[in-house]
Amino acid sequence: MANSRSGDSMTERIVRVLDTFTSERTMQTASEIARRTGLPSSTAHRIVGELIEQGLLERDEENRVRLGLRLWELALRGSSALRLRQAALPHMEHVQTLVREHTQLAVLEHDEALFLERLSHPDAGANITRVAGRLPVHASSSGLVLLAFADPALRERVLAGPLRAVSRETVTDAVALRALLITIRRRGFVVAPGSIEQVSTGVAVPVRDRGEVVAALSAVLPREAPTEPVIAALLDAAAAIEEDLRTSR
Amino acid sequence: MANSRSGDSMTERIVRVLDTFTSERTMQTASEIARRTGLPSSTAHRIVGELIEQGLLERDEENRVRLGLRLWELALRGSSALRLRQAALPHMEHVQTLVREHTQLAVLEHDEALFLERLSHPDAGANITRVAGRLPVHASSSGLVLLAFADPALRERVLAGPLRAVSRETVTDAVALRALLITIRRRGFVVAPGSIEQVSTGVAVPVRDRGEVVAALSAVLPREAPTEPVIAALLDAAAAIEEDLRTSR
Repeated sequence: MANSRSGDSMTERIVRVLDTFTSERTMQTASEIARRTGLPSSTAHRIVGELIEQGLLERDEENRVRLGLRLWELALRGSSALRLRQAALPHMEHVQTLVREHTQLAVLEHDEALFLERLSHPDAGANITRVAGRLPVHASSSGLVLLAFADPALRERVLAGPLRAVSRETVTDAVALRALLITIRRRGFVVAPGSIEQVSTGVAVPVRDRGEVVAALSAVLPREAPTEPVIAALLDAAAAIEEDLRTSR
Repeated sequence: MANSRSGDSMTERIVRVLDTFTSERTMQTASEIARRTGLPSSTAHRIVGELIEQGLLERDEENRVRLGLRLWELALRGSSALRLRQAALPHMEHVQTLVREHTQLAVLEHDEALFLERLSHPDAGANITRVAGRLPVHASSSGLVLLAFADPALRERVLAGPLRAVSRETVTDAVALRALLITIRRRGFVVAPGSIEQVSTGVAVPVRDRGEVVAALSAVLPREAPTEPVIAALLDAAAAIEEDLRTSR
């Protein structure tokens, strides 16, 4: 009943509809959505109609469709991402008062770094990351920390490549990357100058819950900024987050 | 194809599954989910399976199910809630450094105040609100502001009652509530002592985008705290958020 003749589930088709929305594309007509999903037009229109009926999508006065607050509520209310992010936020704010650039929290999701939170100073420098945005694990400082402490199977899969160059300084050589990950595990932090954008340096540390690395806490700085005080602030904040996660169980 | 014999859509059944997760119930077995949805067990189990396959739910080592990061990502990435909340956050942080209690951002969603963000000082007093949590519009200070500036049809629907008492001081008389809403529209802020919890006072102001009130910015204070400086801080922050919303268009 829930499966079409082509074998994809109704859930999969709903995901395809929701997946057409991005941070750059928050409003679409039902026809644009239909085209972008690649689903038969009648199927896509019917799913959009059902999603609007349930409040997961909303229609505005000009008949354009956007993601609904009900979807936001359902996704967040019981989310472990929210628990982690709520534990981290006060300590991220403290880092941010010291660093006054960008402070971020990321988790591993499908071999990429998914950013749960980002605090930015109005005068801060360049930074490509967005809340609910992703970056490759081998390029971003957060991703490198998550990869260094990830399940060995995942690490080998990523090392087997391809390792795409995000900037000229992204480490794309598997041997060099393997050595870097060993260093990160030993030191407990990474400084990654220019690996995403040439003008910036990423600094990241792991955050643990029940002994496992569950997130990376990072800062993005202008390339020439001193990194030592930032490393110290991030390590202190990670310890404080871990303590809050322990007591909030 | 997508509709069961009982006439509810597949989307509606997926929402029923996701809706069993709350901030107090972040982990469930598939059987608990099935029971709580009221759906036939085989249907519920099949939907849970599909949602896991798409990453909207995740299964842990002990075979319990939780909301997936993929759901979080899909819900946030293109969300207008995220845009509003990102515009508000730096200014909420500024309020929070002055007030050092709770600073919150809420929107109107299905006749209730839905909280998009909450910042709390570690030593702050009582506060029932949660991110992605809801409160009645006639009781919370945020809700009162949203109701005061809402569509008249919604306002009349709420005033027609029933007006449930959340605390002994919640305004539950329609005539008194109507007068309060007029005062809020005239003054541009509300001070609501004890209307949610007797030990706390809520203070809230409207936030406008394109001339429409789109959110309420609020602080929750201990009952005896002075409110004037908080009103001023919230009004200044709301103006700054409105300016950022204007320039981010």
